[in-house]
Amino acid sequence: MNMRKIRVGITGYGTIGRRVADAVARQPDMELVGIAKVRPDYKARLIAERGYPLYGADEESLAALRAAGLPARGVVADLVAGCDVVVDTLPPKQASRLLPIYQASEARVIFQGGEPAGIAEVSFNAQSNYEAAVGRRTVRVVSCNTTGLCRALGTIDRAFGVEKARVVLARKATDPDDPDTGPVDAVVLDPAPAQLPSHHGRSVATVLPHLKVISMAAKVPTTHAHFHSLLITVKDRNVTAGAVVRAFEEATRVVLLDSREGFRSTAQVFDYARELGRSRSDLYELAVWRDSVTVVDDEVYFFMAVHQEAIVIPENVDAIRAVTGTMDRDESIRLTNRTLGILK
Amino acid sequence: MNMRKIRVGITGYGTIGRRVADAVARQPDMELVGIAKVRPDYKARLIAERGYPLYGADEESLAALRAAGLPARGVVADLVAGCDVVVDTLPPKQASRLLPIYQASEARVIFQGGEPAGIAEVSFNAQSNYEAAVGRRTVRVVSCNTTGLCRALGTIDRAFGVEKARVVLARKATDPDDPDTGPVDAVVLDPAPAQLPSHHGRSVATVLPHLKVISMAAKVPTTHAHFHSLLITVKDRNVTAGAVVRAFEEATRVVLLDSREGFRSTAQVFDYARELGRSRSDLYELAVWRDSVTVVDDEVYFFMAVHQEAIVIPENVDAIRAVTGTMDRDESIRLTNRTLGILK
Amino acid sequence: MNMRKIRVGITGYGTIGRRVADAVARQPDMELVGIAKVRPDYKARLIAERGYPLYGADEESLAALRAAGLPARGVVADLVAGCDVVVDTLPPKQASRLLPIYQASEARVIFQGGEPAGIAEVSFNAQSNYEAAVGRRTVRVVSCNTTGLCRALGTIDRAFGVEKARVVLARKATDPDDPDTGPVDAVVLDPAPAQLPSHHGRSVATVLPHLKVISMAAKVPTTHAHFHSLLITVKDRNVTAGAVVRAFEEATRVVLLDSREGFRSTAQVFDYARELGRSRSDLYELAVWRDSVTVVDDEVYFFMAVHQEAIVIPENVDAIRAVTGTMDRDESIRLTNRTLGILK
Amino acid sequence: MNMRKIRVGITGYGTIGRRVADAVARQPDMELVGIAKVRPDYKARLIAERGYPLYGADEESLAALRAAGLPARGVVADLVAGCDVVVDTLPPKQASRLLPIYQASEARVIFQGGEPAGIAEVSFNAQSNYEAAVGRRTVRVVSCNTTGLCRALGTIDRAFGVEKARVVLARKATDPDDPDTGPVDAVVLDPAPAQLPSHHGRSVATVLPHLKVISMAAKVPTTHAHFHSLLITVKDRNVTAGAVVRAFEEATRVVLLDSREGFRSTAQVFDYARELGRSRSDLYELAVWRDSVTVVDDEVYFFMAVHQEAIVIPENVDAIRAVTGTMDRDESIRLTNRTLGILK
Ligand SMILES: NC(=O)c1ccc[n+]([C@@H]2O[C@H](COP(=O)([O-])OP(=O)(O)OC[C@H]3O[C@@H](n4cnc5c(N)ncnc54)[C@H](O)[C@@H]3O)[C@@H](O)[C@H]2O)c1
Ligand SMILES: NC(=O)c1ccc[n+]([C@@H]2O[C@H](COP(=O)([O-])OP(=O)(O)OC[C@H]3O[C@@H](n4cnc5c(N)ncnc54)[C@H](O)[C@@H]3O)[C@@H](O)[C@H]2O)c1
Ligand SMILES: NC(=O)c1ccc[n+]([C@@H]2O[C@H](COP(=O)([O-])OP(=O)(O)OC[C@H]3O[C@@H](n4cnc5c(N)ncnc54)[C@H](O)[C@@H]3O)[C@@H](O)[C@H]2O)c1
Ligand SMILES: NC(=O)c1ccc[n+]([C@@H]2O[C@H](COP(=O)([O-])OP(=O)(O)OC[C@H]3O[C@@H](n4cnc5c(N)ncnc54)[C@H](O)[C@@H]3O)[C@@H](O)[C@H]2O)c1
Repeated sequence: MNMRKIRVGITGYGTIGRRVADAVARQPDMELVGIAKVRPDYKARLIAERGYPLYGADEESLAALRAAGLPARGVVADLVAGCDVVVDTLPPKQASRLLPIYQASEARVIFQGGEPAGIAEVSFNAQSNYEAAVGRRTVRVVSCNTTGLCRALGTIDRAFGVEKARVVLARKATDPDDPDTGPVDAVVLDPAPAQLPSHHGRSVATVLPHLKVISMAAKVPTTHAHFHSLLITVKDRNVTAGAVVRAFEEATRVVLLDSREGFRSTAQVFDYARELGRSRSDLYELAVWRDSVTVVDDEVYFFMAVHQEAIVIPENVDAIRAVTGTMDRDESIRLTNRTLGILK
Repeated sequence: MNMRKIRVGITGYGTIGRRVADAVARQPDMELVGIAKVRPDYKARLIAERGYPLYGADEESLAALRAAGLPARGVVADLVAGCDVVVDTLPPKQASRLLPIYQASEARVIFQGGEPAGIAEVSFNAQSNYEAAVGRRTVRVVSCNTTGLCRALGTIDRAFGVEKARVVLARKATDPDDPDTGPVDAVVLDPAPAQLPSHHGRSVATVLPHLKVISMAAKVPTTHAHFHSLLITVKDRNVTAGAVVRAFEEATRVVLLDSREGFRSTAQVFDYARELGRSRSDLYELAVWRDSVTVVDDEVYFFMAVHQEAIVIPENVDAIRAVTGTMDRDESIRLTNRTLGILK
Repeated sequence: MNMRKIRVGITGYGTIGRRVADAVARQPDMELVGIAKVRPDYKARLIAERGYPLYGADEESLAALRAAGLPARGVVADLVAGCDVVVDTLPPKQASRLLPIYQASEARVIFQGGEPAGIAEVSFNAQSNYEAAVGRRTVRVVSCNTTGLCRALGTIDRAFGVEKARVVLARKATDPDDPDTGPVDAVVLDPAPAQLPSHHGRSVATVLPHLKVISMAAKVPTTHAHFHSLLITVKDRNVTAGAVVRAFEEATRVVLLDSREGFRSTAQVFDYARELGRSRSDLYELAVWRDSVTVVDDEVYFFMAVHQEAIVIPENVDAIRAVTGTMDRDESIRLTNRTLGILK
Repeated sequence: MNMRKIRVGITGYGTIGRRVADAVARQPDMELVGIAKVRPDYKARLIAERGYPLYGADEESLAALRAAGLPARGVVADLVAGCDVVVDTLPPKQASRLLPIYQASEARVIFQGGEPAGIAEVSFNAQSNYEAAVGRRTVRVVSCNTTGLCRALGTIDRAFGVEKARVVLARKATDPDDPDTGPVDAVVLDPAPAQLPSHHGRSVATVLPHLKVISMAAKVPTTHAHFHSLLITVKDRNVTAGAVVRAFEEATRVVLLDSREGFRSTAQVFDYARELGRSRSDLYELAVWRDSVTVVDDEVYFFMAVHQEAIVIPENVDAIRAVTGTMDRDESIRLTNRTLGILK
């Protein structure tokens, strides 16, 4: 480990920003130098209460934060100036608004999956292509669904060879802290108007370009996880359900849950995350239903759940190390896992 | 058409029973001779208000109905004695309780999809195997999901040959009049504990035995429709999306909806059914998203919605005619469609 | 009845516009001269299929409708020119955009409850103040919640004198055809930020100014009805639950439902509306839970449900007659009730 | 503090049992001697992983737990034999099944609010009547809703005198880990059939007998909190909103949240609990919307949220101390608050 800590700033403090902030604060090799916030809401107050340095998104935000009695230190440009790495966690397709500021600085930038792939040099998933991100100026951590798919399909591909993967996503409608977005009682094409195959298959290819993945997606009225149904044709005709389970058991950041033990739904997956005592009851691991794993002929079937709020958090931590070139993949994954309480 | 009307009785007056009752009452060749009901609730009162003859499920029910001032005429055995055909619409796996009564009578019996296939001589879908039911003593109209799949896969198979069909079902959690069953905010394995492939593929095979169908299912918090994602490998390598759409356009009891015209979710499908002015805002047709139909290589993809409450109603009407042998398939389908307001 | 039919045009064809259109089309003394629509979606197509004359919201809409092959006849100004009465059903707070067009015409205009009270000369509820609207140029039919409260509180007030009414509203989150608005799993202050008492009490006062009504509101994840809890201090100390029920039995457009008969929730209220065979499964009546009516000391308590999509429809029909002065209150209410299938 | 730790056992390990277990384990003056469990599900496995001693509900459960490889030590009777205090957390109205075992032992027993008041000598809320429980053999911690109401109404009563309180409850449908219970899209009378006033007012009176409380309740499709609308007539005619807020600020286990700071719904209340870093993201405090507090004439209005899973946990801890007589009220509340992270 190098002597000086990596100085990390975060723009945006919503679902992802808050989690990256706390994860960074737990890393022995990182220093959280500040967070940029738009409004003086309760989240801004919590930044201050936690002792994290607070910045305004712009002059107007800065004034509003200060007017609310919050100790804001400057604006985004001031924050970025003091960073080795900035983690951009703005809402989807908004990062471009801060690009000039990022580009005027020396900081390396980590973007999130809501941005177009073209925004960064590399689309990133720690297990799949950590090395490709080493030393880069810009990296994009792929979305929650894509991260889950990279973990699952990467594991299957390494063990059995993926001939063709098909995935149907029942997407959470929104995050649990959002009371505005629906639906209340409907399944919604995603995207709407219809587009088949959906972008998720192509998103996996930004990380694992050789994989053939067909995806279909719809939104359902839930808040706690995406739910994926996988149907994968593999190359290894000797594949068995037991061998698939073993491959997942050996994979990092994958947890196997058994519906016979009570994991009958995403409700119990969320309950399990609460029991684990994690920060915010987050489940960083991809959850695969162990007893759903089934093989018929040369096809592998299973269900899995992606805790959308949490799954990309360890990836962001690893991405920070990758761009700074301070640690190799396995060392970073191990350290991230240990600090976040991820078992394997 | 034969001179005497087919005398039809119905046991159970829940989601399906009520609809079959009204559908039978609209048929020129049928007479609704009565409905058996357990409790003197508002549904029982509506039977009386509509002038349908009311019977008790047993002596206790008969007494309760009468105590509530409802004009109940007798018990199930009395009802069955006056029927050519009884349509059993008891809750799933309950029909066996009335089997002795049915067997002691001359009546032919139509069962619903919640019963095991073995309860009847034939599992039935009008378009797929009407002829197999002609003259039978017992027939089982397959479930809502299976009916939808028979319509969709039968159409694709006849036009292009189905090599292998894969379907992922996002099942409605419950019917709109049920305030007890959840989930509220979860996706639930169906069945739970997990069973992959789910029974739906095998259910299709009870009607279309040569089809290879793999299915996976989960329940989502909605009430208005099942939502299916289809991924079908076809034999005809020259298949195109346009040709698939045309095949559906020619199929009976299938409606094509375009998400660009506003059909972005099952919410608008339900809205459409209300606009059509149908009894109870029911959509008897399978709804296929026209602009979701996509072909990549030899695989056909599309989304479809199954209005669980309504889709089996025309099938029940046809099944009544099939068992009595009073009409051939095309004649029955045409008459059913016309009386229920189904366009094609 | 006068010889010439009242020529009615409708701007907006969403939840309310579609229902007013069909209701107008059923009135023997009215002629539906056209509907103005923005987009060529499935609702526009249904206008054409129903044979209702179609107009564009503006030139752009007109072009879009025609480009989609729909037989649009002109723009809003053309429609308004041919009307005795225009029913504006634009989204909340949007009607002002069409005010110049309305004002340049001779037509009388009916606005909906989403507009500010100041937009019209009179805020209207047929049972409460029909006469105040007679001959007016502009009238505003109050919102669904206010209509329900006017029916309930007006009835109680006439029978027992309302000293002070308190109402807590659990508002539906959105209409059933809207898959975008939430919440999914939350109760939301309405309005948010908080405002107590909520506007509903004051809205009742626009129709029944002498009533003292305190209201509190929150949104819940449902689509089929608003649910109100009433706590009313009455002047008549001899009030009994039986007398309250009788007052409701005599009131028009109020239906009494008994939870012991199965009406345990708004789910069964919706189910009941479907059973009644009404257009779109609408319940025009206020639904009061008969067996919830309770009196303790001088306070009356009960639950009621307001089918938000439907309750204002008969009011709009009556408002049309009121402004044209073609019928008196009781005659209009009777005719509206009969044509819409309202029992009393 | 006395020398020997209080030996505490817990029967039931669902929503409440798990939380009481962890809370007890955090108390310096208590020892968790074991937990009785029915089934070898993931919760049982977590007991073992946490190192808590595990017992079977009965011989059958014991065998099942052991068959699953879990280190179960005995049955309920064995557990109870080693306890000073047993906390019964069985499902509502089930505790009576274990009464013979409890009565055959020396242990004092804490029951939960789902049991009838008559099961225990005292119904308990720490702030309201700690002293009444001191030295008792049996105590019942009142339900989540009643606990919330005792905190709120007790505070208002002590500060201003409650003349009459009216409360309307929008109850969560079920706990977040339950995927079976609905409704999906309805508001459900609670109880159904209707019963007005609901039992909640009477439940408050088991703790604060002099308070006059009228309550009405319905269930809504949410999982994260009960939502209460309060309308309270107070004796002190000089009451102001500011004074009410100050009274809440001084009360223990009440947190004030401002909707202008982003707390627009129960979704953000839950989010806040996650941010606080509490075990399981629990909010032990009653949450009162600060800016909803409004006074009109002699009535006080406000909204509040009750985190059903968490609010009774500190009360159980205090109840354990009360029955053993080892600490006085203020000392116990302070210690409980400190160990659970409750700020005031
Ligand atoms: N929410 C998820 O489940 C999830 C999962 C994986 C990836 N992502 C991706 O992460 C990114 C962030 O998503 P999120 O869910 O955290 O969004 P969010 O809306 O919860 O948070 C974004 C925050 O950024 C703030 N913001 C906007 N403009 C800003 C500016 N100029 N300066 C500083 N802050 C600004 C907003 O006020 C908001 O609080 C998106 O690309 C998204 O696609 C989200
Ligand atoms: N609900 C659907 O969406 C749906 C769709 C397709 C097929 N089905 C199948 O249709 C059948 C009926 O389902 P449903 O949804 O209408 O059930 P339901 O629960 O709505 O109605 C069944 C009714 O039967 C009554 N009943 C029970 N025992 C009786 C007896 N001995 N005599 C008379 N009545 C009795 C019940 O009281 C109930 O009202 C099941 O096999 C189901 O699987 C249901
Ligand atoms: N939805 C309800 O439950 C309900 C109940 C009672 C009263 N209201 C009130 O009725 C009014 C209409 O509400 P809604 O729910 O029907 O809204 P809606 O959004 O369902 O429909 C409004 C329609 O007006 C159209 N529109 C917008 N601008 C237009 C223009 N310039 N010309 C023509 N059409 C235009 C929109 O495209 C939309 O289709 C509002 O004032 C609302 O507050 C609604
Ligand atoms: N859930 C809430 O929000 C809440 C809030 C306040 C009070 N309460 C009350 O707390 C009590 C427990 O409720 P809960 O929600 O925790 O219930 P729960 O159903 O979540 O848990 C109860 C557990 O007890 C177990 N059990 C049943 N019989 C048993 C036996 N003989 N021995 C050992 N364990 C047995 C069950 O298997 C279950 O796991 C009830 O009285 C309830 O009314 C619940």
